Amino acid sequence: MRLGAIEAGGTKMVLGVFDKALNSLAQTSLPTTVPEETIPQMVSFFKEHKVDALGIATFGPINLRASSKGFGTILNTPKLAWQRYPLLNAFEEALQVPCEVDTDVNAAALAESALGAAKGLQNCLYFTVGTGIGGGLYCEGQLVHGLMHPEWGHVLLSRHEEDPMLHGVCPYHPNCAEGFASGPSMQTRWGLPAKDLSEDHRGWDLEAFYLGQLCANALMTVSPEVILLGGGVMHQSALLPLVRQYMLKFVNGYIDSEQLPPMEDYIKAPALWPDSGLIGAALLAKKAYNKSIQ
Amino acid sequence: MRLGAIEAGGTKMVLGVFDKALNSLAQTSLPTTVPEETIPQMVSFFKEHKVDALGIATFGPINLRASSKGFGTILNTPKLAWQRYPLLNAFEEALQVPCEVDTDVNAAALAESALGAAKGLQNCLYFTVGTGIGGGLYCEGQLVHGLMHPEWGHVLLSRHEEDPMLHGVCPYHPNCAEGFASGPSMQTRWGLPAKDLSEDHRGWDLEAFYLGQLCANALMTVSPEVILLGGGVMHQSALLPLVRQYMLKFVNGYIDSEQLPPMEDYIKAPALWPDSGLIGAALLAKKAYNKSIQ
Repeated sequence: MRLGAIEAGGTKMVLGVFDKALNSLAQTSLPTTVPEETIPQMVSFFKEHKVDALGIATFGPINLRASSKGFGTILNTPKLAWQRYPLLNAFEEALQVPCEVDTDVNAAALAESALGAAKGLQNCLYFTVGTGIGGGLYCEGQLVHGLMHPEWGHVLLSRHEEDPMLHGVCPYHPNCAEGFASGPSMQTRWGLPAKDLSEDHRGWDLEAFYLGQLCANALMTVSPEVILLGGGVMHQSALLPLVRQYMLKFVNGYIDSEQLPPMEDYIKAPALWPDSGLIGAALLAKKAYNKSIQ
Repeated sequence: MRLGAIEAGGTKMVLGVFDKALNSLAQTSLPTTVPEETIPQMVSFFKEHKVDALGIATFGPINLRASSKGFGTILNTPKLAWQRYPLLNAFEEALQVPCEVDTDVNAAALAESALGAAKGLQNCLYFTVGTGIGGGLYCEGQLVHGLMHPEWGHVLLSRHEEDPMLHGVCPYHPNCAEGFASGPSMQTRWGLPAKDLSEDHRGWDLEAFYLGQLCANALMTVSPEVILLGGGVMHQSALLPLVRQYMLKFVNGYIDSEQLPPMEDYIKAPALWPDSGLIGAALLAKKAYNKSIQ
């Protein structure tokens, strides 16, 4: 069984081929330009590698209502060339193999639960904090879609009263997670990319304030067994311990401490990063294949 | 098959007996005093009615980790006599029938999904807004527990800048849902119980601001197919339409409108209220029974 996997991002497409034990057989990447150019390149790669199934872990928002006509179609994205693009359908037609699609962060949550930092757990929330913020949700052993799919980046948060920004950078919401805590919000606030802020810059404390608030709300709402934080902004290793501190500060003793694991086991870095999404896509491919032979 | 059901509340216990088609055969209620008094009264009722299984929908927090020693034990509640009380165990020992326990709001979400306002849906979020605020979560056809159980009442919200209260009434959090939008918060803020505020009192607009924010965050995080709002505060019929308006205001066009159902189908009153929790408990009893004969 040869499993094809795509992690579809706004700037690049990462493509992989895996065997059924999830060993990597081939991997490449190419820039995300327009569908007319990028899709045929991807199709060629997977034809060449003779994949038996394909999993797609994609940027969102995407229509994941299996019962709807537009299932697998990209929705209202700022990447205009990809708006309304029937991503799933394009690969099903071109490759004629079983295909499965989910969000990049849902796929990452699936991969981490199967093989990574949430191995053996039935509930895992995976956040990516980078150009945007997104969350993937694995609940009671299943990926959550619901009405659309979990989103998390646009959850409303309380502004820190000493935040130099009055409004976050999100064009939709003055005070959402992405607007206050994404990479671009840090760049706007401090005039430097996040990666150039020194470890002791006060920007990290403010970033942890917002991410800690996000994690506290996650604990209160979906009660994950573990929260994983990946993405470019998390490269700053001083950040994760601060997020843990802020989460506890926001929970403020409401949750019985004996119900909470030690914070270093509860809010963690993903183990498969930066490949969580791609490996999740391979797991989606496996699922599609297994479904097709039932 | 005779199904016993308890909706365990902080002030009263509602007890019911149902047949397997969920028709009510008997119902009663008694005040919640101390376990030594209340539990034997409940046990007598269910013995008299010869129930074959029991479902318990209880106030929380409660330990729902099936693998833990304290499974089914009430946790850190302000009802001190019930703290650490092994609720599930007490009934299993006294009745010697299969028992199942969940939170009152999870049970309500289950009942509404099976028979009520969320019938046929796989994803439903049930809020109760009264003395406290709680949320029950049914995701992809399963009740969510995770690390503990979804909680929702203590989700952090942004304060309305014209709210006469600087801090909500919650002793743990200056700005959580329960602190700003529970019945007691309305009473503290306006000096009158919620039920005595006239339909055009500005308190309802402020209440809708907080509940709309809660619903917007729910949409972004768990993507329910429907959100149900029950509980005493929701008796004011002017409130629900205002909550819908505020939710849309908070989402602010971020979600593709074609992905959202009409608001009157999306944010609704529960259909089984005030019996959602009790009927949910009967469904838990049925589940326990079916598990026991497998």
